[in-house]
Amino acid sequence: MNTARTCSRRVEFRDTDAAGIMHFSTYFTYMEEAEHELFRQLGTTVMQKVDNETTISWPRVAAECQFRGSARFEDEIEIKVAIRRLGKSSVTFAFEFFVDEGLIATGTMTTVCCLFAKDQPPKSIPISEPLREQLSALLVAE
Amino acid sequence: MNTARTCSRRVEFRDTDAAGIMHFSTYFTYMEEAEHELFRQLGTTVMQKVDNETTISWPRVAAECQFRGSARFEDEIEIKVAIRRLGKSSVTFAFEFFVDEGLIATGTMTTVCCLFAKDQPPKSIPISEPLREQLSALLVAE
Amino acid sequence: MNTARTCSRRVEFRDTDAAGIMHFSTYFTYMEEAEHELFRQLGTTVMQKVDNETTISWPRVAAECQFRGSARFEDEIEIKVAIRRLGKSSVTFAFEFFVDEGLIATGTMTTVCCLFAKDQPPKSIPISEPLREQLSALLVAE
Amino acid sequence: MNTARTCSRRVEFRDTDAAGIMHFSTYFTYMEEAEHELFRQLGTTVMQKVDNETTISWPRVAAECQFRGSARFEDEIEIKVAIRRLGKSSVTFAFEFFVDEGLIATGTMTTVCCLFAKDQPPKSIPISEPLREQLSALLVAE
Repeated sequence: MNTARTCSRRVEFRDTDAAGIMHFSTYFTYMEEAEHELFRQLGTTVMQKVDNETTISWPRVAAECQFRGSARFEDEIEIKVAIRRLGKSSVTFAFEFFVDEGLIATGTMTTVCCLFAKDQPPKSIPISEPLREQLSALLVAE
Repeated sequence: MNTARTCSRRVEFRDTDAAGIMHFSTYFTYMEEAEHELFRQLGTTVMQKVDNETTISWPRVAAECQFRGSARFEDEIEIKVAIRRLGKSSVTFAFEFFVDEGLIATGTMTTVCCLFAKDQPPKSIPISEPLREQLSALLVAE
Repeated sequence: MNTARTCSRRVEFRDTDAAGIMHFSTYFTYMEEAEHELFRQLGTTVMQKVDNETTISWPRVAAECQFRGSARFEDEIEIKVAIRRLGKSSVTFAFEFFVDEGLIATGTMTTVCCLFAKDQPPKSIPISEPLREQLSALLVAE
Repeated sequence: MNTARTCSRRVEFRDTDAAGIMHFSTYFTYMEEAEHELFRQLGTTVMQKVDNETTISWPRVAAECQFRGSARFEDEIEIKVAIRRLGKSSVTFAFEFFVDEGLIATGTMTTVCCLFAKDQPPKSIPISEPLREQLSALLVAE
């Protein structure tokens, strides 16, 4: 796929399982970590304090992953990230996972920009204009 | 949905996150745990030793989850499991997650029956007839 | 050891590692889970809301574990819990882990009763008298 | 303490908990990760294949940690590693964890060099001379 950003992770021992490979749930935590790393690269964070009682954060509403191969202890995984869809409040990320240039998994994750105010349920809000511009630049066609 | 089996898990502290809720990756480990519990209830296991050099196991090829609500520390989550599709070698499970009878997430996971022989790549094999019969009985229409 | 309480956990697949056994960090999460289960049995919880801005909780100040054996996927681990020391604000728990009646690990963990008030650092406070009485009843000599 | 090596980790969201800080069990996985990184820096690995049926690995026999502070989401933790004791088969590592130059935790972990042969229980073996020399160079007095 066309890629907006790339990051990498080394498979740590705690993330392996008795089948000798990286546990499948780790792909999902890696998607989240790649999203968070992308936000840091854009100069922001997924948990942004507005004031003492209010935070803007990005709960996920959906995640899925297809597994084609596997990764082993100490493998270095290259994670390619693209933004596939940018809604008023939501972002859909696409991910590809590689070991030694072989594609081992693909996935997507959709998050929603929400306001968390004290003693209130989370409320979806429009993505701020400056961030929307930054994320738009990372939109890539499928 | 029509349900084949139900199991439950209490949200442990290590599975919560700084947003105060159960981390989204835990839904995927719970799907796997529900699958494993189902296999035990059928009198078998997802890691079945054939001989010293061969094991039959069930790697996942796909997993996805939609999040509609959230769970908190010490909540008891009820997990409803159904088999949605039964292929020659593959099983697709469907899951619903409830807290206090409120639906907080739905998901599916597809696994493939594989032979792991020493120094060989995993090879998909037909599900054994006795197990196929047991799983067929748990097939429920969407 | 003399035991105050016993609980059990089945080794889930995500907690195994590429050595084929339960990852050593899981013993620490099991100690915490046994502590939390004990508090629930006493009719309370380790995260007790005082009011909207204040919580009483129990951060750990020390934990240690000695590993003598190992546990495998789907093993049922029996966890024996005792209270070894009860300070003004602190509790030291001792743990023994068994598989098939064989001792596989021992450990201790010390927690401190703290008040978490909004925008303040945690502050240790005396354990409440009713809870102290309950915990005292679980004190067992080494 | 006198330090042999330093590595760092950023606190990922999955390792935070509902108290808003990094879960205490993560300090133990970080100790292991620092050990593994040290072995890679020495040109070796903690899981060394001897032949198709034999592996040399390093199970842990003890681990302990004292917690003095806490780390939050996206904090960068500096981990200082020293070797405190070098036995015939065992190594005791000492660790210090810092955030913004403030010490938040200290710990130790003892591992034993073992031969894992097919269908045999693990057997402790002497550390190889070349590795012993490398590890000796990292011994630092308390």
